[in-house]
Amino acid sequence: MDTFPPVTFLHRLADAASMETLPRFRTTLEVEEKFKPGYRFDPVTLADKEAERVLRELISSEYPEHAILGEEFGETGTGPWKWVIDPVDGTRPFICGIPVWGTLIGLTLEGRSVMGMMSQPFTQERFWADQEAAWAKNVSGTHRMRTRSTTDLPHAILHTNSPERYGEFPEVRFERLRDTVQMTRYGGECYAFAMLAAGQIDLCLELSLQPYDIVALIPIIERAGGVVTGLTGQRPEAGGHVLASANEALHERALRTLTS
Amino acid sequence: MDTFPPVTFLHRLADAASMETLPRFRTTLEVEEKFKPGYRFDPVTLADKEAERVLRELISSEYPEHAILGEEFGETGTGPWKWVIDPVDGTRPFICGIPVWGTLIGLTLEGRSVMGMMSQPFTQERFWADQEAAWAKNVSGTHRMRTRSTTDLPHAILHTNSPERYGEFPEVRFERLRDTVQMTRYGGECYAFAMLAAGQIDLCLELSLQPYDIVALIPIIERAGGVVTGLTGQRPEAGGHVLASANEALHERALRTLTS
Repeated sequence: MDTFPPVTFLHRLADAASMETLPRFRTTLEVEEKFKPGYRFDPVTLADKEAERVLRELISSEYPEHAILGEEFGETGTGPWKWVIDPVDGTRPFICGIPVWGTLIGLTLEGRSVMGMMSQPFTQERFWADQEAAWAKNVSGTHRMRTRSTTDLPHAILHTNSPERYGEFPEVRFERLRDTVQMTRYGGECYAFAMLAAGQIDLCLELSLQPYDIVALIPIIERAGGVVTGLTGQRPEAGGHVLASANEALHERALRTLTS
Repeated sequence: MDTFPPVTFLHRLADAASMETLPRFRTTLEVEEKFKPGYRFDPVTLADKEAERVLRELISSEYPEHAILGEEFGETGTGPWKWVIDPVDGTRPFICGIPVWGTLIGLTLEGRSVMGMMSQPFTQERFWADQEAAWAKNVSGTHRMRTRSTTDLPHAILHTNSPERYGEFPEVRFERLRDTVQMTRYGGECYAFAMLAAGQIDLCLELSLQPYDIVALIPIIERAGGVVTGLTGQRPEAGGHVLASANEALHERALRTLTS
């Protein structure tokens, strides 16, 4: 009952999700409307639903006693183990054809995220965490990920999805952080969290996340050496506003800048 | 003298550039500093310089009478044909590990852009224009690109690099366009222009471009059915503020919203 699933199972799940998402990526509305007039073809919703369906089937067949929380079909089951999945995280870049979306597959034990997978099938990349470490795999091989050692904000690279929503949350002093860091970039979605784990960037800030937007990414960030919390320093499994940093010293500085 | 280079030559150039850029992508500063203490390793600058060097060698050997304008080494030669190249367009995403940068290779004849290539070696994609059409090639094959038929702004998807610089250019009414379109996304760089040609998005707006940021993309957009001009409707080869749209009707509406 307390045995961790093997990493191969995470890859089987990612394989199955890819079969549903990748054929629908870059499929345009207009092409399909020729064949089914009047039918509004929505490739990203189909990708999301069909991928969650196959993920649930595989999980339920292998681990029938595990609970599942998914973006499309809500929460099913109870118990210490819960899978937390977002079949297409980053529906906007998916629609735009930009390959920074991903399939997020997380596993929590007693509410704490213990394993995670981010799969980007178009670029043929996977980023995952097992019990020991965080790993990245692409066409050129698999390697262990480690976060950067940047500790001062003026040398840090920050990613956030979009600047527009910060107006709704004046208590999050985004502009103060943006004006302190070296560079702020937008639109990276879950791919930006993977790049933080991979040691390419230093900070990721996201607003109003759902658990399925972050649970899979938590162990990937933590086992690569990073820190991820809510803005009062709380565990991030429940979502909400979330900051991830390359290391503890940088995290403290960024949190202070954002909230004091 | 007036013969167009074959498309195979554009691919040879893209192949050569990839050999210089791809090995330096996702190479982190810290790894290299271990081996050369005190030496500030700058992978993106090296990628830019070395790729431009090999592009110039190939062009000069095949077309010694052609002029070349490159981001790194300026303008050399004179004559009716001029190659306009940016070995790494999107240095910020290159640094961040996000695969929306690209190698831009354009060719002008008497100042007008007539052929273009955008190569993204990490995703193994190429987007180019020959005399007839615009094409996309990825691991699953080559297909002709066509822009979308969206003609009203409230259904249009807009990309722009970053919202921050619009404050410097109050005459560009970005916020008015942003508040009219269906969705605004950031950080797509040259990849967003390729997605406009591919029929995924509807509008791309960029500020203060250099000729080498846009020349290669012009025929890719135009031969896919799109329109690209400066904000007073002028030809975009010289750069500056540039708007690309999926079609003429949408372009007129977006220009009016931005400038009236």
